[in-house]
Amino acid sequence: MTTIDSIDNGVNVQALLDAREALKGSPEAAQFTWRATTRWENGVHSTTTVKNFFGLGAEQTHKAESVFAADHPEVFAAEDNGITPIEYLLVGLASCLTGGIASVAQNRGIQLRSVEATVEGAHDIRGILGADSDVRNGYNGIKVTFNIDADASKEDIEALVAQSQKRSAVFDALTNPTDVTVEVA
Amino acid sequence: MTTIDSIDNGVNVQALLDAREALKGSPEAAQFTWRATTRWENGVHSTTTVKNFFGLGAEQTHKAESVFAADHPEVFAAEDNGITPIEYLLVGLASCLTGGIASVAQNRGIQLRSVEATVEGAHDIRGILGADSDVRNGYNGIKVTFNIDADASKEDIEALVAQSQKRSAVFDALTNPTDVTVEVA
Repeated sequence: MTTIDSIDNGVNVQALLDAREALKGSPEAAQFTWRATTRWENGVHSTTTVKNFFGLGAEQTHKAESVFAADHPEVFAAEDNGITPIEYLLVGLASCLTGGIASVAQNRGIQLRSVEATVEGAHDIRGILGADSDVRNGYNGIKVTFNIDADASKEDIEALVAQSQKRSAVFDALTNPTDVTVEVA
Repeated sequence: MTTIDSIDNGVNVQALLDAREALKGSPEAAQFTWRATTRWENGVHSTTTVKNFFGLGAEQTHKAESVFAADHPEVFAAEDNGITPIEYLLVGLASCLTGGIASVAQNRGIQLRSVEATVEGAHDIRGILGADSDVRNGYNGIKVTFNIDADASKEDIEALVAQSQKRSAVFDALTNPTDVTVEVA
């Protein structure tokens, strides 16, 4: 029989609980700035790098620089040198909810064996093409479906997913509006 | 002197204008479904793959499968095997606006020499940690700054950026709410 002490989803929940308590008393340390730099290549092909961020009152750095290509597919008369920008939102959403599930499972003493998410975003491209001004540019809707194998009932698994959604940074960013300012230097 | 015929930002604008006209008469072909699949690795580390999508009435495929790692940084007591999920939103936003600038410049006969975007997202992590229920989980705000070298006045360059923003799928997705459904299979 699995005991709660032997549960290991690889999440250091105690560190997160300690951070929660510590940041209650020092909100300035909780102010993070995430950053990316994008360089135009040619056509709609661009390269984005992510390396540094600010948080806990200091400059921080990822262990490695990550580089991401974006482009349009060949059906848009482009070269398909990378996924489309809007697909990056799906990457962020599914990975955020998946990480959250592991964290919540650890906190609740539920051993995960496997988690897989499939995410689909419905997009009417008449918006971005300017073919119909009543059609929005972004997604009309997004659906995420989880397949989870864990030492838990279906009900407990559904509660895990619900709690992950409740705490998800990306779920919030997509379902609620955010101010975005765009400037020319 | 540069003439409009010699402008080449690598965007096939005529194909996009043709697509706009064609899709006005066949809205069903404009319905795209973008997809991603995420597999949990360990802790909050996951791997997301993007390969296939649906559009123009048929299954489509990218030239190559793209694979993306997401994780938390070491300051969150994780292994930093990839960028955080919320950083993927910045990748999508900056690449979307950058590609749009190239497209609009091509349509307006403006030769681009270089485009670079820096994007910063302000994030109060007390939200995701549950340290303060009045703090949202997502970004408090995002700022994108463009440095553009082009055969155009500052005013024309600002108009390019404004038009790109107006047609951007990701700008819309972040500044306006989208329905997201999360289910367990």
